[in-house]
Amino acid sequence: MTKNIKIFVDLNAATMGDSGGAYGLIEDAAIVVDGGMIGWVGPKADLPARFADAPRTSLGGRLVTPGLIDCHTHIVHGGDRAVEFEMRLNGASYEEVARAGGGIVSTVKATRGATENELLEDALRRVDVMIAEGVTSIEVKSGYGLDEETELRMLRVARSIMANRRIRVKTTFLGAHATPAEFHGRDDAYIDDVCIPALRAAHAEGLVDAVDGFCEGIAFQPDQIARVFDVAQELGLPVKLHAEQLSNLGGAKLAAAYGALSADHIEYLNEEGVKAMAKAGTVAVILPGAFYTLRETQSPPIDLLRKHGVPMALATDINPGSSPLNSLLLTLNMGCTLFRMTPEEALRGATCNAARALGLTDTGTLAAGLRAEMAVWDVKHPAELAYRIGFNPLHSRIFGGTS
Amino acid sequence: MTKNIKIFVDLNAATMGDSGGAYGLIEDAAIVVDGGMIGWVGPKADLPARFADAPRTSLGGRLVTPGLIDCHTHIVHGGDRAVEFEMRLNGASYEEVARAGGGIVSTVKATRGATENELLEDALRRVDVMIAEGVTSIEVKSGYGLDEETELRMLRVARSIMANRRIRVKTTFLGAHATPAEFHGRDDAYIDDVCIPALRAAHAEGLVDAVDGFCEGIAFQPDQIARVFDVAQELGLPVKLHAEQLSNLGGAKLAAAYGALSADHIEYLNEEGVKAMAKAGTVAVILPGAFYTLRETQSPPIDLLRKHGVPMALATDINPGSSPLNSLLLTLNMGCTLFRMTPEEALRGATCNAARALGLTDTGTLAAGLRAEMAVWDVKHPAELAYRIGFNPLHSRIFGGTS
Ligand SMILES: [Zn+2]
Ligand SMILES: [Zn+2]
Repeated sequence: MTKNIKIFVDLNAATMGDSGGAYGLIEDAAIVVDGGMIGWVGPKADLPARFADAPRTSLGGRLVTPGLIDCHTHIVHGGDRAVEFEMRLNGASYEEVARAGGGIVSTVKATRGATENELLEDALRRVDVMIAEGVTSIEVKSGYGLDEETELRMLRVARSIMANRRIRVKTTFLGAHATPAEFHGRDDAYIDDVCIPALRAAHAEGLVDAVDGFCEGIAFQPDQIARVFDVAQELGLPVKLHAEQLSNLGGAKLAAAYGALSADHIEYLNEEGVKAMAKAGTVAVILPGAFYTLRETQSPPIDLLRKHGVPMALATDINPGSSPLNSLLLTLNMGCTLFRMTPEEALRGATCNAARALGLTDTGTLAAGLRAEMAVWDVKHPAELAYRIGFNPLHSRIFGGTS
Repeated sequence: MTKNIKIFVDLNAATMGDSGGAYGLIEDAAIVVDGGMIGWVGPKADLPARFADAPRTSLGGRLVTPGLIDCHTHIVHGGDRAVEFEMRLNGASYEEVARAGGGIVSTVKATRGATENELLEDALRRVDVMIAEGVTSIEVKSGYGLDEETELRMLRVARSIMANRRIRVKTTFLGAHATPAEFHGRDDAYIDDVCIPALRAAHAEGLVDAVDGFCEGIAFQPDQIARVFDVAQELGLPVKLHAEQLSNLGGAKLAAAYGALSADHIEYLNEEGVKAMAKAGTVAVILPGAFYTLRETQSPPIDLLRKHGVPMALATDINPGSSPLNSLLLTLNMGCTLFRMTPEEALRGATCNAARALGLTDTGTLAAGLRAEMAVWDVKHPAELAYRIGFNPLHSRIFGGTS
């Protein structure tokens, strides 16, 4: 027994493990933390004798879950789009908004014009909201630079979040997010001359954990995405894809063919794509914030995903245009309310399945040998986490074994 | 000049007054606070000489709005309905939920079984979330007691919020919310033998600021509501009504005939009802949280309300069943996203028009002679308050002239 051992008691543990009943719930549990790792989890009555002398901390009957994981964010970006939001609600057409400099163009301009420090300060305000909700890991994408310098700057900022806050960050290169104005009408040239060289440069600097793209009529076609994925594969990087958000271009199937970690949005995914994802072990990342903000009416095929056993994650997609959603708890409620996911599916979507969508095998459930990343909640039942709207019942967050 | 004067400077003031441009915005404004009242508001350059010596507090260029007002809440109630939420999402029918003791019956049971102190403790957790969002006044309804003792207990708890937190509470008697199980099939007897006597008793104890009812096929019919409103009128109490939420029974028109402060929900309101409200000066209280939670598809007639100049308020309707929504800021976003209200309409809905829905004439805008109830925000533009989702940019709240 090392000196770093401590034991949490007087708690119910929603382990999110596969064994046991709903939520992998263990009532009156004990959780042994050894340094930054979980040493043992189980019913307190079964606590091994070797832990008899370790110091105990009572959690007062509260619920403990794995720390939450937001597996799809654009949390690093310059500026906001509040004025555009207001213009649209005052009846401005997309053309008028574009003429006024709105749309993704405005975010690219603001991001290119921001220093690393400005981007970091803005991102940390949003990260702090997530930390206050028990989030212990987030994914952060590039994709508002659309030139090599700014794409790399975004990824550096994403990584530097970890130096400023007690949270884990996984970085995703999303050069294939949109074609910048200076390449208007030359999507292929942008992919070959900017996106792919930027990916190689970012990887050379060690800034990339995964590679993403936006496969859509208004963005990039499957053959362009495939060229980016070929380079990812060559570099040994896993891929994921914004797919089937507004139409079905077969993006999820393409991603699955590359063994993608996840296919994200997928409102227009059909059964063929679902089967391909199931076979490849690709996670379905459901993003209700964009569905809600865009007033989309086509829901992702939840029943088909269930039928074929595709794991479902839920994420904020926080971004200044289609999903200015900063709350992962609210995302759980949206997954239930808008898509009829169950509260357990929602919580798995922000814990174990979110970990899988990021390729993380050391977090996302409460189990011996995983990291001690946990959230302690002032709730009686895990369903409360998805039930309430705009109420945060977090009691404390444990990261690296300490609160 | 009294000793209590202080002046806030380096701020933009969204006064929500009718004069000036959008939001009644005054850039580089000064706000003079004299004790608990606003003494003067205007461009700093126009500050009268008599205030030259008063101490100044810089707000660092932030935005100041009136304190937010949530004009429709059921924030005092026992228990929660998380398990029922989960049952439904796991496919349970309404009958199965009812057999398991779910629905409003479960909230009535939990409320009747809770002590005044338990109800207060639970309510304060939710009130604190609102205070953290810059809310300075809330309305609180009874309606989960459905017997005289518990209805009065709910109203006493609502009033005691003011003794425990720096916030104003207006109480509304809602005995005509539902017929309790012991009066099943005898709605008229419940109205005459319980609801009306309870109203008289609550009024005699000085607990009632307004009288409300739920006019709907599944609740009370117009003639039953009219009997309650007749008593309200006799007692000199203003009325308001849950009307046209699920169907059109002419509730808003009935309410308007009694000079109602507000008609609330009103998804199924027609132009005849809108005209009656316009004529009576009745505020339309829009409740997007219930619309969202119930997955309603019929939107309230925003265009007709605009056409006839009916003031629109926005409120959380926080309750454990159809709207477990604790965030008034999120309600602003829902009003814009779901109902295409403009960010300015949304903010008026939670300030000046919400005040009007409560009959409050001393708050809701920033103007000399009104109470110094204000919210200070870390935003550049007032549209940001409705644009972000699950992000709270409150810097500080001023109540009774102090933060
Ligand atoms: Zn995205
Ligand atoms: Zn209500």
